[in-house]
Amino acid sequence: MRNLLLLLLLSAHGYCQENSLTKIRQYRIEQQHSIMNDFFTFISIPNVAADIKNIQKNASWIANYMRTIGIDDVQLFQHASEKTPPVVYGEVLTPGANTTIIFYAHYDGQPVDSTKWEQGLHPFKPVLFDGSLLKGGKQIGIPKDTAAYKNEWRIYGRGSSDDKAGVMAILNAYAAIKKVGLTPSINLKFFFEGEEEAGSTHLEDILNQYKDKLQSNMWIICDGPVHQSTRKQIVYGVRGDTHLELTVFGSNRPLHSGHYGNWAPNPAMQLAQLLSSMKDGNGHVTIKGFYDDVKPLTTIEKKAIANIPVIDPQLQNELGFVKSERKELLIESLNQPSLNINGLQSAGVGKLSANIIPTKAIASVDLRLVIGNDWKRQQDKVVEHIKQQGFFVTDKEPTDAERMAFDKICMVTRSDGYNAQKTSLDNPIAKQIVKAIKNANGVDPLSTPTLGGSLPLYVFEKVLQTHPITVPIANHDNNQHAENENLQLKNFWDGIDMFASIMLTIK
Amino acid sequence: MRNLLLLLLLSAHGYCQENSLTKIRQYRIEQQHSIMNDFFTFISIPNVAADIKNIQKNASWIANYMRTIGIDDVQLFQHASEKTPPVVYGEVLTPGANTTIIFYAHYDGQPVDSTKWEQGLHPFKPVLFDGSLLKGGKQIGIPKDTAAYKNEWRIYGRGSSDDKAGVMAILNAYAAIKKVGLTPSINLKFFFEGEEEAGSTHLEDILNQYKDKLQSNMWIICDGPVHQSTRKQIVYGVRGDTHLELTVFGSNRPLHSGHYGNWAPNPAMQLAQLLSSMKDGNGHVTIKGFYDDVKPLTTIEKKAIANIPVIDPQLQNELGFVKSERKELLIESLNQPSLNINGLQSAGVGKLSANIIPTKAIASVDLRLVIGNDWKRQQDKVVEHIKQQGFFVTDKEPTDAERMAFDKICMVTRSDGYNAQKTSLDNPIAKQIVKAIKNANGVDPLSTPTLGGSLPLYVFEKVLQTHPITVPIANHDNNQHAENENLQLKNFWDGIDMFASIMLTIK
Repeated sequence: MRNLLLLLLLSAHGYCQENSLTKIRQYRIEQQHSIMNDFFTFISIPNVAADIKNIQKNASWIANYMRTIGIDDVQLFQHASEKTPPVVYGEVLTPGANTTIIFYAHYDGQPVDSTKWEQGLHPFKPVLFDGSLLKGGKQIGIPKDTAAYKNEWRIYGRGSSDDKAGVMAILNAYAAIKKVGLTPSINLKFFFEGEEEAGSTHLEDILNQYKDKLQSNMWIICDGPVHQSTRKQIVYGVRGDTHLELTVFGSNRPLHSGHYGNWAPNPAMQLAQLLSSMKDGNGHVTIKGFYDDVKPLTTIEKKAIANIPVIDPQLQNELGFVKSERKELLIESLNQPSLNINGLQSAGVGKLSANIIPTKAIASVDLRLVIGNDWKRQQDKVVEHIKQQGFFVTDKEPTDAERMAFDKICMVTRSDGYNAQKTSLDNPIAKQIVKAIKNANGVDPLSTPTLGGSLPLYVFEKVLQTHPITVPIANHDNNQHAENENLQLKNFWDGIDMFASIMLTIK
Repeated sequence: MRNLLLLLLLSAHGYCQENSLTKIRQYRIEQQHSIMNDFFTFISIPNVAADIKNIQKNASWIANYMRTIGIDDVQLFQHASEKTPPVVYGEVLTPGANTTIIFYAHYDGQPVDSTKWEQGLHPFKPVLFDGSLLKGGKQIGIPKDTAAYKNEWRIYGRGSSDDKAGVMAILNAYAAIKKVGLTPSINLKFFFEGEEEAGSTHLEDILNQYKDKLQSNMWIICDGPVHQSTRKQIVYGVRGDTHLELTVFGSNRPLHSGHYGNWAPNPAMQLAQLLSSMKDGNGHVTIKGFYDDVKPLTTIEKKAIANIPVIDPQLQNELGFVKSERKELLIESLNQPSLNINGLQSAGVGKLSANIIPTKAIASVDLRLVIGNDWKRQQDKVVEHIKQQGFFVTDKEPTDAERMAFDKICMVTRSDGYNAQKTSLDNPIAKQIVKAIKNANGVDPLSTPTLGGSLPLYVFEKVLQTHPITVPIANHDNNQHAENENLQLKNFWDGIDMFASIMLTIK
């Protein structure tokens, strides 16, 4: 009897949820022309972080939009001492709610090179396509009021997916809730950053400055793409990141490769030998202790990874290579620290090639980190390895005396860095979010323990002692950071549903 | 008695030679202002091979100069079908002479980048310095007629040493002989090329076209610098040369080094591993059969090498490195084939570095060859090595199908090349030239079996079945091919004496 009652209650609860989401969907279908019109206006405001005038226009536009849809206490968080892109903040407090969630997206975009965009396209003049440009999609006009936007259509423009889509999906989720007369189950806070693509240089300061306002039980970061299989995903962490630039020195002036070739030391060959000593033929980094600090995956993380569809063969086909660097699957590899060469340079090649022995050879090296790694310690391991290969390591150009004292010289330039961050897959709010997304989309989202890429999410933990999770909405083939950035409309509509579901059901 | 007579005859012969050379010296000291004035005018005519208008001005200037000093039959050798820099040719036949020597120099120079020249200097506005600019030398004015040019002074300007110095030293040697009333002991032919720095592309055609005129017993090439010890040298050969460009491919678009790092193959790392496999830590090329074809040095060559002063420590100090790539001395290394990386490039470094996995990585590789090597066979060995390292080798960008069939792909772009050339140190005319130079300078010239660098001297052997030797005059620190090219005056005056001595004594 008690079981039957529980079943009925649960069904009723499920029915109510389903009913609410149906209303949300109806609303955003009815309002699609108005929503898209606003979205196009928003993309038309240039949003490179360094362009402070336009960045402020973006911020004002968002603040105004928030006020229009009924968000209280909208304000711009300005940095205390520097003129930097403001954070647009707002909140909706729900009487009786126990849980507060902060929704994060960023409104600034990567710098643009308009000349690289497809003929006729411009980063800040958004247009519609009837499919992916790469697969023969054609530009189309804005549909008349009677015609519906189709799911497979795409918006092309800077920020269409990264990350004005996040701002628009979050705000329209709330607008829909408000307009159809529903009430959120939680307190909502909105936090839209304006310099994420410029390195979030002032984020930590701003979090500190507005600490009191920014208390919450969870941050939801809406950024990045969904899984390559098109399944939605919740990402529980990011890899850390740091860089080293290695410069190996030869003679103090370029030498004729005939008159001095196979006598004068060749820094390009020395660099090749040094880099080669760092990785074996199976992609395993051979630097001593490189994997030592790695905290092993938990059982629940392993299980989550096992549930992620294998997209490796499809992706390899799309990217034009037949064998990955390591035997592991992509998703497994991303749970390990990495060492990658980002670039090489020594004298010239092709038309710039000359018959010389170069004076120096440079490699730019990227280290990604997982939980357990410390970015400075990881740099130290690489530097120690370079010394073990017989190099004198310095942090500046060698002096004449150093040149005559050491037969192999490597200048190491260390960049700053930050560590990985992870939120537990067991987090009780995260578990509710999984359900909320399933309710909205009809399919369980994937649980991805870590993103391969890096975001400074450790700063939320550090300043606010809270845990972020990432809920991306953009299609994976969105050309994020590059020319022809685009957003598939289905991903945008699904995003609105997902965020509305989260706002309505989390306890 | 017979011995005494012989001794007297030899002494008389020596006395006559000494007397002749004294006259030559007196003449060029008396005429130094006029000679230098002509040299400055000559350098003032821009001489980049592609600048055909100015090249023709150079050729006319030389032809006129030759006529003025009494050379017969001066003419311009034009290429039969293309408008290329002409060869300036002239001859002086000596009644009763059994030997004909052709004196070669080139009047074109390396392309110039005026912005790289020392402030106030211009490649085609020659000026005098009281010493090497690198060692604090200062610019000085042209001396008054009563003041002598000093031996340590230098002319700065394009072509001052490479190789208008050759043209001027050869012609002024003959001018001096003529003016002081002496008679050459040989037939003289003069051959001044105008596109040596542009690869001597039409040299073979011109030699064929004017084959009848160009019969001789020996070519003397005046080009390049004397030994770094400042000793004069005769160089009996050159290394051959060819190039390969290696391009290793990764994914078909740049990938985010976070999202795909240690899964997607990294072509920069693959290239580093490939290059690293080509040479061991002692500079020994590990490509199978790389040294197999090398014809061993003869006893006389080994002896000549042993006589060459060891300048390695001095040179290493000057060039700023403490250990050479191989254990051998420079002069020994140059008698081996070499493999050198001329340049590396993959994505960007420094400010151009991005968080990506590059799509490709390129190395420009230079192969120098010695007698026994064939340039195509030497290329083949490298290509075979690349295959042995597991690469699919292609000569064009890989197709999609090739990308999906082979896990490591290297595009090899082969340049043209040519083989080494050597004239025997036993050559009887060469032996006389050694003596002639000793007479002129008072010191035995060094006999250098081969230059480390390359010139297409094989073409003289091939077309004319004759053997060239090289008699350089320029100082070794002449900045040949680069900014601030210069000639030390002592080297120029010595050059006139050397060529006059050769013209007067060879039988």
